[in-house]
Order: sequence, then structure tokens, then C-alpha cells
Amino acid sequence: MLMGKVVGTVISTQKDPGLQGYKLFVVQCVDVSMKPTSSYVIAVDAIGCGEDEMVIVVQGSSARITERTKNKPVDAAIIAIVDSVEVGKNRVYEKYKQ
Amino acid sequence: MLMGKVVGTVISTQKDPGLQGYKLFVVQCVDVSMKPTSSYVIAVDAIGCGEDEMVIVVQGSSARITERTKNKPVDAAIIAIVDSVEVGKNRVYEKYKQ
Amino acid sequence: MLMGKVVGTVISTQKDPGLQGYKLFVVQCVDVSMKPTSSYVIAVDAIGCGEDEMVIVVQGSSARITERTKNKPVDAAIIAIVDSVEVGKNRVYEKYKQ
Amino acid sequence: MLMGKVVGTVISTQKDPGLQGYKLFVVQCVDVSMKPTSSYVIAVDAIGCGEDEMVIVVQGSSARITERTKNKPVDAAIIAIVDSVEVGKNRVYEKYKQ
Amino acid sequence: MLMGKVVGTVISTQKDPGLQGYKLFVVQCVDVSMKPTSSYVIAVDAIGCGEDEMVIVVQGSSARITERTKNKPVDAAIIAIVDSVEVGKNRVYEKYKQ
Repeated sequence: MLMGKVVGTVISTQKDPGLQGYKLFVVQCVDVSMKPTSSYVIAVDAIGCGEDEMVIVVQGSSARITERTKNKPVDAAIIAIVDSVEVGKNRVYEKYKQ
Repeated sequence: MLMGKVVGTVISTQKDPGLQGYKLFVVQCVDVSMKPTSSYVIAVDAIGCGEDEMVIVVQGSSARITERTKNKPVDAAIIAIVDSVEVGKNRVYEKYKQ
Repeated sequence: MLMGKVVGTVISTQKDPGLQGYKLFVVQCVDVSMKPTSSYVIAVDAIGCGEDEMVIVVQGSSARITERTKNKPVDAAIIAIVDSVEVGKNRVYEKYKQ
Repeated sequence: MLMGKVVGTVISTQKDPGLQGYKLFVVQCVDVSMKPTSSYVIAVDAIGCGEDEMVIVVQGSSARITERTKNKPVDAAIIAIVDSVEVGKNRVYEKYKQ
Repeated sequence: MLMGKVVGTVISTQKDPGLQGYKLFVVQCVDVSMKPTSSYVIAVDAIGCGEDEMVIVVQGSSARITERTKNKPVDAAIIAIVDSVEVGKNRVYEKYKQ
């Protein structure tokens, strides 16, 4: 999975019926020290998250295996909100300290 | 999913029967500030869009899950036309202002 | 899908039985202005094409959905020969003018 | 599959039910001479590994084929702990010498 | 598919049961002129190859479609040993001349 921050939203009215009712978020990827990179992905929200949250995104066919996205035409779904990240014994991210 | 702009079309007469009747669009990817990048993808139109529109493209096996592309030999399908995009509370794209 | 030019062939006698009878082509990717890039893919021919032709390649599990490659162990198949490409109202490629 | 080192962990309480009970590890990729690269992946542990171990990660739909991850919404799973790696007759990695 | 050279092996005792009995090879990718690149992939051997051989690797779910890897948790399998490669009418690789 990839890790990134919810930085924005996409609004669309003309779309495949399978996308009805899903929020489309812009998730900007972060590197291993939690700095934003130039990569991003448009992902549907499968858990109920909001802007500025650090999240985990599952891609490919597995994005259709979450409880809320079964058999939907999506290739990226937010499946977890990150509370904290430790790398090399250092706490590199903590949700409530942001 | 990825976000990009429909910038062109591909015409092909000799092709797999599964592609008959689909428009093949050239979709140039945009970065998180909506500037075109050097990446692009050839995608089939699953919703009825046109040139110069900003669209969302689903890739991989999920491109075969849309209403119009079920079980077709495609790995990229346009599934939404973008009305607007907000990043960091800024409206970075709006269809009717272009 | 990706777009590229058939620039070569791969010959192999010791291979998985599922590959028997398929031609393996070297397809060099082109950028949005049709210039060759440093990327390439080895793809099976699902439509009957030849060297120097501009083609469309489908990747991933969808490469097993064409008429000629059903259930074969391939992740890239040539599914269309390109007649012409228009980008931004300019004809950037035309088969019979090459 | 890719090869990398387990360098950290991600803690998440709000997540898709399918992720319950899995450890989420940060796996930093290594190049062919075993030096860490700037790439990483968030992977679930399918075998019982720990930090600082060199591991093999399977991606895509195959990440749902391991004994412990069947039908789970994951696109990356740790499926092997590396004992040693030989490249060009040189032992470039050995677990018990680290 | 990608093309590369078998340059090494990975030894692992603690692994998913689905990997038992497979050799794990380090395959270094080559570019279109057959020069090694900085990319590599860990692939299982589905045909019986050895070190220093130039091979074709299938990735993704198709890596589970070969005769020897059906339903195994792998995302890369060696499915062909390359005898020769021709690019632009030039023989750029020949097995028995190496």
C-alpha cells in the first residue's frame, strides 16, 4: 500500500454509475520521512476520512475488496487513517501532534 | 485513479474485436497543481466525454468493471468528467472557467 | 493502454507451454509527440502486426482478455495497429505517410 | 517480487475491517547491491517477521493469495524472510552477519 | 513482459508455504540495447533456467497462470529463456555467442 495525505477533493457529476456516492480524494504521497512527494493518486474513501489526514491507500484489484467498494470501478481506495508511524525507533508521525 | 486532460484521439481499424465501438483517447496526466506532465495513457471512453475535458481514468482490471467496458480487453477507462478540484482549500480547477 | 512502435522480435525455444505459437515483439514506447522513449515492453501479438508498425499495447490481466490470448501467461498484448493520432487538432502520426 | 528491509511500523485504529489483526510494516526497497533506495511500500506481514529483517514483498492481487491474507484488501504482503543473497557469485547479503 | 538477465539467487527458509520448492532469482532488467539497467525483480523460475541466462519475466496476476505457478503467491515468474533478440534488423543478443 502507499501512504499519503488527503490534500483535496474532486467534484464530478458526469461519471460511471459505479462511482455514485463515493468521495474522490486527492492523496499526495509522502516519502519514508513523511515529506510530501510530487506523486499523488485520486482515491475513493472506504472508511470515512477527512482532509489533512494521513492515510493508507490500497491500489489495483484489491481496491475492490474493501467493505464499501466491492465490485466498484476503482483502482485506489483509502483503507486506513494513520495514527502514528515509527521508522528506525523514531516516531516520524503522530496524528494528534500535527 | 489518475487525473488528466483529453488531448487527442487514436484511430485504428485493425484491432481486437473487443475494442470495436470504443473511442480511444490520449489522456495527458496532470500534476497536483493541474499542470500537464510528460506522462499520458491511451484510455477508452466509458462515459461520453470530449476533447479538452479534465477526466478521471481508472486503470488495471478495474477498467473492465465500468458499465460500458465489462470484460473488454482494456486497462484504462475514463470514468468521470471533472467539474472542479480543490487542493488545500484552493479551487485549482473549475470546468466552466477554462 | 500504452502506445509504441514494434522495433524487434525475441526468439525463445525453452518457454512455458502457454507461450507456444505466439510472436514476442519488442515494443518501444513513444511520448505524446510520438518520439521514442527509453521504455519498452515485450508483448505478444494478438492481432497480426509487423515490424515498424505503431501499435496499442494492453497490460496486466486485461492482456489475457483478447480473442487470441485468453488465459495465457502474458501481461502485455498488442491489440490494435494505429492508423493515425491527433493531438491538439494536429495530426501527429499517420501510418501511410511514414 | 521486490526486496527490502523492514524499517518501521504504521499504527492505525480507524481502518477497513479486513485489515484487523494485521501488522503494517514500512519496507524500504533495496537496489541490486542491497543499498536502500528512496522507494518504500506499506506491506502486511504474512509470515511473522520483525524490524531490521530483509524481506520479499509480493504485490498486486497475488498479495491476497498467501495463507494469512486470503481475500483481504491488501496489495503488498511480506511472504519471505531473506537468509542470504548471491549476485554474480558474491554473497551480497547474509542475515546472521548483519 | 520484461526482459532481463538472471544475476543472482535469494535463499529463504521462513516463507509462505506457497513458495516452497521454487527458486527465487534476481533478474536484472536490460534496456532495448540489452545493457543492464538499475532495475531488477525477484522472480520465481517457471521453466528451469540458470544464472547468466537472458530471460522473459511475466508480472502481475499472469505470473500465476504458468504451468508451474498456478495459484501461487507470486507476482513475477520467468517464463522463457531468450535465444536471440533482433532490434531494427540487428541481432542485439544471441545466447551462444555470449
